[in-house]
Amino acid sequence: MVFEAYIGLHCDELSTPALVVDLDEFEWNLKTMADACRASGCGFRPHAKSHKCPEIAKRQIAAGAIGICAATVAEAEALVHAGINGVLLTSPIVDYEKVRRMVALANKPGTVLLAVGHLLEARLLSEAATPVGKVIDVLLDLDVGDRRFGAIPGPDAVALAENIDKLPGLRLRGIQAYSGKSAHVAGFEARLAHSRERMGLAAACRSELAAKGLDMGIFSGASTGTYNIDPVTVGLTEIQAGSYIFMDTEYRLVGSSGGSSVYNDFRPSLKVIATVVSAAHGDCVTVDAGIKAFATDSESLPEPFRWPGVRYRRFGDEFGHLTAETGASLPRLGDRVAFLVPHCDPTVNLYDRVYAARGDRVEAVWPTVARRES
Amino acid sequence: MVFEAYIGLHCDELSTPALVVDLDEFEWNLKTMADACRASGCGFRPHAKSHKCPEIAKRQIAAGAIGICAATVAEAEALVHAGINGVLLTSPIVDYEKVRRMVALANKPGTVLLAVGHLLEARLLSEAATPVGKVIDVLLDLDVGDRRFGAIPGPDAVALAENIDKLPGLRLRGIQAYSGKSAHVAGFEARLAHSRERMGLAAACRSELAAKGLDMGIFSGASTGTYNIDPVTVGLTEIQAGSYIFMDTEYRLVGSSGGSSVYNDFRPSLKVIATVVSAAHGDCVTVDAGIKAFATDSESLPEPFRWPGVRYRRFGDEFGHLTAETGASLPRLGDRVAFLVPHCDPTVNLYDRVYAARGDRVEAVWPTVARRES
Repeated sequence: MVFEAYIGLHCDELSTPALVVDLDEFEWNLKTMADACRASGCGFRPHAKSHKCPEIAKRQIAAGAIGICAATVAEAEALVHAGINGVLLTSPIVDYEKVRRMVALANKPGTVLLAVGHLLEARLLSEAATPVGKVIDVLLDLDVGDRRFGAIPGPDAVALAENIDKLPGLRLRGIQAYSGKSAHVAGFEARLAHSRERMGLAAACRSELAAKGLDMGIFSGASTGTYNIDPVTVGLTEIQAGSYIFMDTEYRLVGSSGGSSVYNDFRPSLKVIATVVSAAHGDCVTVDAGIKAFATDSESLPEPFRWPGVRYRRFGDEFGHLTAETGASLPRLGDRVAFLVPHCDPTVNLYDRVYAARGDRVEAVWPTVARRES
Repeated sequence: MVFEAYIGLHCDELSTPALVVDLDEFEWNLKTMADACRASGCGFRPHAKSHKCPEIAKRQIAAGAIGICAATVAEAEALVHAGINGVLLTSPIVDYEKVRRMVALANKPGTVLLAVGHLLEARLLSEAATPVGKVIDVLLDLDVGDRRFGAIPGPDAVALAENIDKLPGLRLRGIQAYSGKSAHVAGFEARLAHSRERMGLAAACRSELAAKGLDMGIFSGASTGTYNIDPVTVGLTEIQAGSYIFMDTEYRLVGSSGGSSVYNDFRPSLKVIATVVSAAHGDCVTVDAGIKAFATDSESLPEPFRWPGVRYRRFGDEFGHLTAETGASLPRLGDRVAFLVPHCDPTVNLYDRVYAARGDRVEAVWPTVARRES
């Protein structure tokens, strides 16, 4: 079936497992983030690692995003080829082939930016850009405590920034810092304090570099958990949040600024629909969505939507098991069951398309791209 | 880059994360299973859910397989379109669209078979096959204790077999039974006892049905863990093993018939290659392979290959963290590190291709298909 043939179908007519986004909730999230950024005066460059979907990136741009973040070169390529500008590669790359691919994308100023946390990355980029006469926009990538990548704020980071500034073919535009550990701190005040301390290290480094006359116009970072924190506390200029567009059950646990223990700034918009394919036992049924249909990195499990008292457990690569608490009803053979997703990003990565539904009807089918991870 | 451009590259030149199969080990596994089946007189219909790769299926057929198993309709379609015959769909399907797709594949006798564990499945199939004048080969699917799907051996299963036999458009050919719980029982003797008990339920049902004059020619089942058990103990006629072609660190723990605590009947042939992309701290480095590069359902973690004393932990969607025990060396920035995989099937599902390498050189690039899960 070509994708057009699905438009207008009822969601229950889709072959399962199927990844479905609820357009009303999705658009609410899209607008809420855009409004928050307009209100705070902060830009936003949402992260495509969550959706890997150019159609969603285009909607984020239309809502006011200044660009889109990518976690892999393959994502960056897919976004640029879809006509997106301002694609920031947030991950380090240290091999020549990937560097060459990124330089090949930089056909106009502003098409791509790269976060760079080590002199090797900067040199490889400079060596690839110079012979083809290109100038690549670069952010100094800072490690504010995650110990994942980036330069450690302090003398080494300052030296790296100065080196980047001198290398031919590169143009330093500011800094990137990401505090993954802050994103999921439960409770708004605790999250604010955690992120202010971590991101404050980057802000101090930025001030020092600005005082040396380096271009520090961009300060890029933050997450769905800190979108309303870092712009206020440390002067962030653009937000990289990704998960906000779908939300997931992990993020709902972090609590909101309004004091709610459920993080309700954004709404769960993403579901996986499965079918009950076996019901031979009275106390359980089997659905056709297992390890290959839901990412399994989270401690949380997929949450049956509108099936109170029904619990999911994994039951192999292609299957899941549903049981019901006393008094709750199990679905029957052939029934469709929708599930909220524990962790959106790696779950979306398992599907080649997202069905975009208005109510129960498919309104569009959006291909995901770059399922190749490199 | 088109796939041909990768042939002849050193594996360290591949963009990472990259999924690589060692052809020498792979071919050893291919031949070992084929030889074992020839020796026992049992057929084999290996499971494509492990590799989702028609090129591998073709090599299994060339080695003597009588067909290939598929876990999803999309896998079955990809295999048939690649010219594979005898494709057995081992999973239940209860929606009309999937049933219609399977019937559409059945263009010649023997192209496809379906395992059927409920009258609803049988009726849907009969109703789809009859108007187009096709006869579909069907196995009665039995639940021997996994409680996942299939009919429970006993009067219900007998009644279902008799119903299948009467329905127009269907031809009963035998039974399928799978004891997933036996596959990973540690210790050969314990595994044999477990599988004999479980699969014995299916064998008894098969005898009863044969006595009624039903065609019970096929008895399909078994796993990599029981390939040398069920043909001997319960008269299995064909083996559905999948993992044997790659092996994984989970299967290595089950022990072999030779008494070894490591299951060494087959050899680990599959690796993920990653690159060290950050090494800013003395006690750890970051590689570019995380939750989207390794399936995370196993309690085991990816195992650095030829890096003794180095341990991996997950560090987000795109990254992993390596630490070294006292006295062990960490790889450096830019180094490639290969990892053995805890659970092959869902890891292969994350990649659009397998690089087939002889020694360190890429000899072929095999696309995986049917990453669409439905």
